[in-house]
Amino acid sequence: MAASEESLRKALAEKQSAVEAHGNAVRALKAAKASKPEIDAAIEALNSLKLEKSSIEKQLQAAVSGSDGDGALSREAFRQAAVNTLERRLFYIPSFKIYRGVAGLYDYGPPGCAVKSNVLAFWRQHFVLEENMLEVDCPCVTPEVVLKASGHVDKFTDLMVKDEKTGTCYRADHLLKDFCNEKLQKDLTISAEKAAELKHVLATLDDLSAEALGAKIKEYGITAPDTKNPLSDPYPFNLMFQTSIGPSGLSPGYMRPETAQGIFVNFKDLYYYNGNKLPFAAAQIGQAFRNEISPRQGLLRVREFTLAEIEHFVDPEDKSHPKYSEVVDLEFLMFPREEQMSGQSAKKIRLGDAVSKGTVNNETLGYFIGRVYLFLTRLGIDKDRLRFRQHLANEMAHYAADCWDAEIECSYGWIECVGIADRSAYDLRAHSEHHVKNVFDEGQREGNIDFIGTNLDKSGVPLVAAEKFSEPREVEKLVIAPVKKELGLAFKGSQKNVVEALEAMNEKEALEMKAALESKGEVEFYVCTLGKNVPIKKNMVSISKEKKKEHQRVFTPSVIEPSFGIGRIIYCLFEHSFYTRPSKAGDEQLNVFRFPPLVAPIKCTVFPLVQNQQYEDVAKVISKSLTTAGISHKIDITGTSIGKRYARTDELGVPFAITVDSTKDVTIRERDSKLQVRVSVEEAALVVKSVTDGLRTWEDVWEKYPHHTSGSADD
Amino acid sequence: MAASEESLRKALAEKQSAVEAHGNAVRALKAAKASKPEIDAAIEALNSLKLEKSSIEKQLQAAVSGSDGDGALSREAFRQAAVNTLERRLFYIPSFKIYRGVAGLYDYGPPGCAVKSNVLAFWRQHFVLEENMLEVDCPCVTPEVVLKASGHVDKFTDLMVKDEKTGTCYRADHLLKDFCNEKLQKDLTISAEKAAELKHVLATLDDLSAEALGAKIKEYGITAPDTKNPLSDPYPFNLMFQTSIGPSGLSPGYMRPETAQGIFVNFKDLYYYNGNKLPFAAAQIGQAFRNEISPRQGLLRVREFTLAEIEHFVDPEDKSHPKYSEVVDLEFLMFPREEQMSGQSAKKIRLGDAVSKGTVNNETLGYFIGRVYLFLTRLGIDKDRLRFRQHLANEMAHYAADCWDAEIECSYGWIECVGIADRSAYDLRAHSEHHVKNVFDEGQREGNIDFIGTNLDKSGVPLVAAEKFSEPREVEKLVIAPVKKELGLAFKGSQKNVVEALEAMNEKEALEMKAALESKGEVEFYVCTLGKNVPIKKNMVSISKEKKKEHQRVFTPSVIEPSFGIGRIIYCLFEHSFYTRPSKAGDEQLNVFRFPPLVAPIKCTVFPLVQNQQYEDVAKVISKSLTTAGISHKIDITGTSIGKRYARTDELGVPFAITVDSTKDVTIRERDSKLQVRVSVEEAALVVKSVTDGLRTWEDVWEKYPHHTSGSADD
Repeated sequence: MAASEESLRKALAEKQSAVEAHGNAVRALKAAKASKPEIDAAIEALNSLKLEKSSIEKQLQAAVSGSDGDGALSREAFRQAAVNTLERRLFYIPSFKIYRGVAGLYDYGPPGCAVKSNVLAFWRQHFVLEENMLEVDCPCVTPEVVLKASGHVDKFTDLMVKDEKTGTCYRADHLLKDFCNEKLQKDLTISAEKAAELKHVLATLDDLSAEALGAKIKEYGITAPDTKNPLSDPYPFNLMFQTSIGPSGLSPGYMRPETAQGIFVNFKDLYYYNGNKLPFAAAQIGQAFRNEISPRQGLLRVREFTLAEIEHFVDPEDKSHPKYSEVVDLEFLMFPREEQMSGQSAKKIRLGDAVSKGTVNNETLGYFIGRVYLFLTRLGIDKDRLRFRQHLANEMAHYAADCWDAEIECSYGWIECVGIADRSAYDLRAHSEHHVKNVFDEGQREGNIDFIGTNLDKSGVPLVAAEKFSEPREVEKLVIAPVKKELGLAFKGSQKNVVEALEAMNEKEALEMKAALESKGEVEFYVCTLGKNVPIKKNMVSISKEKKKEHQRVFTPSVIEPSFGIGRIIYCLFEHSFYTRPSKAGDEQLNVFRFPPLVAPIKCTVFPLVQNQQYEDVAKVISKSLTTAGISHKIDITGTSIGKRYARTDELGVPFAITVDSTKDVTIRERDSKLQVRVSVEEAALVVKSVTDGLRTWEDVWEKYPHHTSGSADD
Repeated sequence: MAASEESLRKALAEKQSAVEAHGNAVRALKAAKASKPEIDAAIEALNSLKLEKSSIEKQLQAAVSGSDGDGALSREAFRQAAVNTLERRLFYIPSFKIYRGVAGLYDYGPPGCAVKSNVLAFWRQHFVLEENMLEVDCPCVTPEVVLKASGHVDKFTDLMVKDEKTGTCYRADHLLKDFCNEKLQKDLTISAEKAAELKHVLATLDDLSAEALGAKIKEYGITAPDTKNPLSDPYPFNLMFQTSIGPSGLSPGYMRPETAQGIFVNFKDLYYYNGNKLPFAAAQIGQAFRNEISPRQGLLRVREFTLAEIEHFVDPEDKSHPKYSEVVDLEFLMFPREEQMSGQSAKKIRLGDAVSKGTVNNETLGYFIGRVYLFLTRLGIDKDRLRFRQHLANEMAHYAADCWDAEIECSYGWIECVGIADRSAYDLRAHSEHHVKNVFDEGQREGNIDFIGTNLDKSGVPLVAAEKFSEPREVEKLVIAPVKKELGLAFKGSQKNVVEALEAMNEKEALEMKAALESKGEVEFYVCTLGKNVPIKKNMVSISKEKKKEHQRVFTPSVIEPSFGIGRIIYCLFEHSFYTRPSKAGDEQLNVFRFPPLVAPIKCTVFPLVQNQQYEDVAKVISKSLTTAGISHKIDITGTSIGKRYARTDELGVPFAITVDSTKDVTIRERDSKLQVRVSVEEAALVVKSVTDGLRTWEDVWEKYPHHTSGSADD
């Protein structure tokens, strides 16, 4: 809690007490029929106290809403203006609108669809082609076994509460969050201690268990928002859309909640495709699905969305990156764990410093953070409203080495748009282990155990890589060799389970057994697939440490995963690009999207100034050269005034307009500056192309060509 | 049935009778102890008859399998070679392979993914940009109401039978088809009549009802293929993947079986976006899902696939197309209905003739057929193995005006890859009607009825267009005006139903009622929402024909829908591009894909001839210029022989290889001709770019540059 807010809450409470005490005093004076001057003086003092209290209330109000007082209002108004324009011009449309829509589903209309396909094309250029990534394209329908292994079937849940009377469902954490925010902002009478408690709840919301969340909801007396009915206890709701594969109804499947699993299960083939060499990255663009309990915030929390994901596989012992030097000098807003914990804000840090100081875990992670920064800013995201926030220890999965979110600030606050995580070996192991469950045990997959007679080759697909040694190295290896004949005699049909369990021992267990067998000749051994102990005798297993020559080191690669929520990036891009400016007459506000040519849905419009065959013919000639040059464009031959036509294309974020006002020279207008130059018909397309392709700037054009002086039509 | 096959079957049957009769005669002679010479002569005659029978059998065998005898074998071998290469080089991969895969689900690996993205980019270029289509992007998750309206919930089914003991499911028509084909090809003893019957069953398979299919399965004694167990009666199985939207479990949804519905429900907004003008086309690329009962044929029948669909909306009274003249002279294989019915084969027809003779229903349909032809052949589809087959009357939906499939021949036969249908006003009406059920009646949506007090505005969204008249026109309109006061008195709570039913009368019904009311003063009137007749008196409704001035004509547009199965096109493209040629040593067959540069996954490889720093530096310089030129490429610096490296890139269909064999000049090799030219390091990238961009041909390059004469490494 900010110091000023805390002291204001205390001052308010004190003033409140003073007002009450003084009120009592006034009543006592009246009751005692004190003299009028005496009573008047007391009332005057009381009023003055009340004024002071009211002044503190105002200060507190300002403090709790921060810049949120006027800020929230203007943010809301800004969003309304942007969203109105976006929906009216069909950038996006609530899906199935004529059937009243479905919460959390949106269509991209023509300009939105063009922006999306430009963003994806640039993503492919900037990441896949530039880095020689292996792009794959896997189905959305996914069998249960895959998502069981990845953990999604068991753990991909949100906590839900139900209105006990109507059955309406709510996200438990959202209700608690709304309650706390509302209380903090609207109830000025709560004590400083209470305010601190509510803030603590908000900060730790993501960590609360179902029980803790339920207890808080009870404690605060939170009820269903629509009906005020009591709520059920929170319980987990799995966010995957479930379905059934094939006609039997016996093969459950899900719509994938992320695209990454399709890459992990193909690791072996992709590693082979890459010539059995690390590092390499695979990438995938595709739909993902999350059956949100109660979608909110427009395009930011939806039930179906496009993800673009990269899985960069790397030797855990060498996370350097050959192109790291290209990003090392980038400087941008970073928000490391420590700054968050100590209540500071994000600050500009040179990427190279963050890596060398160990703030960012390793070079490869740093490299991708830099590449993501370049990607987002080139799209048109405002660099001052973009920060890289490190996950706090309690946010991060236990297996992750480090994790940074690219967060973009928009009218809804700071929004996570890209996650960049070093997930260590978790995902590949999860799929390997799912096959060899009960055979392996955490921590013994690599290095120092030999498998003799293992069924690894039969049922498991180890997702591992190998480093070939230039010369063989001598290593000491633990060898567990079950004696199948003896085990068969002793355990008959259960022999296989016992063999697997013996082979699955880790080094510590095996050495303990070896010692016990040598001293006692027999040990009790728990076989989890049998669910009981069995007696193991000395002649049933040989355990030894042997020196061996090794020709390679086999290991599970680490994976560094940058994962992009394309819809969120696009929505933030819409907000960062949107502005309004007064019309020429000053009687209305006109909407503009300042998209860079890279993402603009159309690069250029062509307007004959007046409806006239000659001008239309010239427009067609120019249109043809634009097509040849590969510039997406549109001709507008309506008789509408040129100013209105400019306003219409500004609303779509079209960067250039060519107005045909003679048969020799035409006028090219730039959207944001509204500056206009005169260019010959022959040159027009090439001028537009050179600027949209980034070969020269508008300033270069402005310098080179004669200016249109007769005053632009819309200015 | 081919004449020769029929007469052969008859000859075989006669010969069989003769053999039997003669055999009996021989046995009779032996029984009667005839003389040895007599018996020997009879046996000789019998043997000669048997020889004749065997010769007819051979001819028949050849006739029934047609070119299928050796042809089927070589097709099978060809497919094996192609599929082996495709799977080994990760063009595609059975999805979730490490978990033993899921039938009907495939991943595209890196080269397949690149081919797919090239095909989609060209589709967008050739259709969306070239025709200024409005591209949209809608979700896959679709609420039930939308697919109820479109008819998919009720009718998107295949007939299924179950093994009565194991529960295994089969597609009923597939079992019957397999049975008939097997019988026809392997059982030569069946009569000509039986053969004709089986062929008739095959020809009418798609028309058979569940009952008819079940009867045939019983009649032929068809059992479960794997177990020979009896089969259940056929019953419909809906092919949509079902799911549930939101946490309540009360909102059923499906994964869309096509992308088209997303466009239809947005018609109103898109029409407005297009300035309320027809014609215009909307387009969508996206995933579609069909839960096939038993997927077959690799990439051709899968459970999830990418569709690219166009919905071209047009005035039903004017189906001309402004760019029709651009395709009118194209000539290609067409297979009109009549040719199919009379047993002829597809023939080359000039598109303009097919349209002018009325074989193709209208210009716009013809225009799209031509554009699809250009699209497919530019991708590399062999024009001699591409035909446009018209739907037979019984194949076509009742509402469709005309429908043509682009079929591509591959090792599985002729495969439908693009459907081009004039679906008239069906789809837009289906969504309009779903809202206004019980208010409207087929055939009265347009033109001659005014709605007074209708609830159309409240519940329905009419998906219609309007043609504004330059001058108002006088038309005679039927006006049905229920007198609510009288109806309220008479029917109280049911008043609304009666009003709606009256307003919903078509012109004929309304005029009959008017006459009856005038003559009798009262009529019985059936109100379907009440499920009963009610008495209508003369004072309850006024029905009149009035002359009115109309300013516009309101109508439901027709839709012409080209729908592309992208995965099928890509698979056929793989087969049409694949060939083998002997290695230089002649000891093995090498695989090549002859992809045009447009679709090749990589356009160029760069090989330093030997591992050497100088050459590698030159390779990097060339790589950089290729990147600048936007040419996707790969450097291969492995020490493998140049011949092996060529073979490796030929297998990926890379059209050009640049071999760095000096620091001044390099060798460019073309994949199919294996011809090589010498080009300076500076020029290399531009030469490759000019050919891949189609600015000049390889022949131009071959003519201009010096040839590499020292004998190519792989030849």
